[in-house]
Amino acid sequence: MRTIKAFGTTAASEPLKPMDIVRREVGLKDIKIAITHCGVCHSDIHTARNEWNNSKYPVVPGHEIIGKVIGVGADVTQFKEGDLVGVGCLVDSCHHCPPCNRHLEQFCEKGATFTYNSHDKHIKGQQTYGGYATEVVVDEQFVLRIPKNIDPAAAAPLLCAGITTWSPLRHWKVKKGDKVGVVGLGGLGHMGVKFANALGAKVVMITTSPEKAKDAKSLGAHEVLISKNKEEMAAHNNSFDFILNTIPVGHEMDPYIGLLKIDATMVLVGAVENLKPFHGGGIIGGRKRIAGSLIGGIKETQEMLDFCGEHNIVSDIELINMQDINNAYDRVIKSDVKYRFVIDMESLKD
Amino acid sequence: MRTIKAFGTTAASEPLKPMDIVRREVGLKDIKIAITHCGVCHSDIHTARNEWNNSKYPVVPGHEIIGKVIGVGADVTQFKEGDLVGVGCLVDSCHHCPPCNRHLEQFCEKGATFTYNSHDKHIKGQQTYGGYATEVVVDEQFVLRIPKNIDPAAAAPLLCAGITTWSPLRHWKVKKGDKVGVVGLGGLGHMGVKFANALGAKVVMITTSPEKAKDAKSLGAHEVLISKNKEEMAAHNNSFDFILNTIPVGHEMDPYIGLLKIDATMVLVGAVENLKPFHGGGIIGGRKRIAGSLIGGIKETQEMLDFCGEHNIVSDIELINMQDINNAYDRVIKSDVKYRFVIDMESLKD
Repeated sequence: MRTIKAFGTTAASEPLKPMDIVRREVGLKDIKIAITHCGVCHSDIHTARNEWNNSKYPVVPGHEIIGKVIGVGADVTQFKEGDLVGVGCLVDSCHHCPPCNRHLEQFCEKGATFTYNSHDKHIKGQQTYGGYATEVVVDEQFVLRIPKNIDPAAAAPLLCAGITTWSPLRHWKVKKGDKVGVVGLGGLGHMGVKFANALGAKVVMITTSPEKAKDAKSLGAHEVLISKNKEEMAAHNNSFDFILNTIPVGHEMDPYIGLLKIDATMVLVGAVENLKPFHGGGIIGGRKRIAGSLIGGIKETQEMLDFCGEHNIVSDIELINMQDINNAYDRVIKSDVKYRFVIDMESLKD
Repeated sequence: MRTIKAFGTTAASEPLKPMDIVRREVGLKDIKIAITHCGVCHSDIHTARNEWNNSKYPVVPGHEIIGKVIGVGADVTQFKEGDLVGVGCLVDSCHHCPPCNRHLEQFCEKGATFTYNSHDKHIKGQQTYGGYATEVVVDEQFVLRIPKNIDPAAAAPLLCAGITTWSPLRHWKVKKGDKVGVVGLGGLGHMGVKFANALGAKVVMITTSPEKAKDAKSLGAHEVLISKNKEEMAAHNNSFDFILNTIPVGHEMDPYIGLLKIDATMVLVGAVENLKPFHGGGIIGGRKRIAGSLIGGIKETQEMLDFCGEHNIVSDIELINMQDINNAYDRVIKSDVKYRFVIDMESLKD
């Protein structure tokens, strides 16, 4: 075991601050990574502040990790020192249950090990600590390869915001020419727009905020639909092949259900909260579907990263120092970021 | 045009009573049917009492129609006098839009013509009148063939309750060995149990009422799950391949969402009302789906009827006289029927 520098919080009401944590030694199949960047996800804030009522303290958040390999276990076959790698929301699973066999480790029946705030199988009595730290040790099966041609800092959010939006677009087979709505323009939504555009869809940004129209178009939206405008919404009734709904809080769903074609699906990726009541007639009268999707498995995450390499896709980010994290959290909550904060982990060494 | 005997109502607050209505003459492609039986669907009550706020009076309900062909138009090719036939919820559609081309006339983009309370294309200024009548004239493309080996009275509810439950089971490809839940044991639910059993599924009746267990098993359920029993529900967590939800009113969905396997779907066929708020985490954490389904197209309805002929499947019914309809409505509302009332239309001739 080895003590390293990190940033975390000891209670829901406390700000994040420097702390020392321990990482396990490099096991036979482990990769040791010197973290260069870590994205700031809204889940980090939910966990730091115990908003999902499941936080174990101290909490060291961070699951959009980019770094360099600085150590490999004896049985590691896929990576070598110096490789540019990433770690997302998952660091382990049982490897044997039906979801694991289907490359859906996020739904592991024994319970996936998430990058932070999960039971740590390797260090007794300790939960997992995330990427707001100088180093991390991870089983090679949960380490991703980052394409060399993309900016590592801007690649960090691909590990969570990227795969969260990529996975449903792929699973529901969004294809060239499909009319795809992306609801909400934040960290997730801006990646949804980029991916849907790159997959050849006709992308409609659906937002409450007319002032976001210009940005949405520069990100790849072909059209912007203001959801508060009932006439505009009615003109798009029953016309969408797929809707990716990134709204992070409970909300009305009827207006979006109305937009779906017969047999089309709206997938929720953000709202881990109670939704507002919706009318059963909206889905019955058109065999419409509402579904959920949670990040994505490791294989699919690698496919997404490879796609990003081929298409030069990264997130739009604002680089910050580790010491700015509490201010960054406040700004995330106000949606005052275009579109993801990424921590430059050099700053933690100071 | 021809005047015939019917039963209907002139206002939401009025009981049903005898009335005369007109039917069109038999057109080139029309079938004229002497109605022998008509099922009593909850939608009949909703429409008679204007509970969906779209009723045009007088309302003559009835869309589970069985009868004998007593006249055919010159261009009719599929039917002849004396044939035993059925008419369900649909009597016309545009025939040319994408849903119609996919045999989904119920979702016709120009608006399907429903058997009652729709604009009647043939009689100016009149809405369509349903099967609480001695005769009906229908385009042959919307007439179904009833297998000769099944009881015509008990076949009537197949035209709505049957297809409403059959269609989602088929569309979501329920197959041998699947664990299928049917929520709610009424007119729809009892057909759902019969069909899911006949398709080879392991059928679990999910109900609030322990006293329904014996009946559910005699209908074909292999197991009964009492939804109020939290421990029993927890034991079935994440285990269902498919859930057919026939609850006809707004209700909590979280308990049923919890029962679904990863990637599994719950289909609502009854609740044309606001659902209670559900938690987004329930569908996100398992890529689960909630969908709706509305009756079924004509081709699929014929397939269902043919399947019923092959497997000797009919509804469990209570045969009543037309004059008993108001009492029957009151009993339907109290769920005091096993499991569908069917009107013996002989009684209307008296």
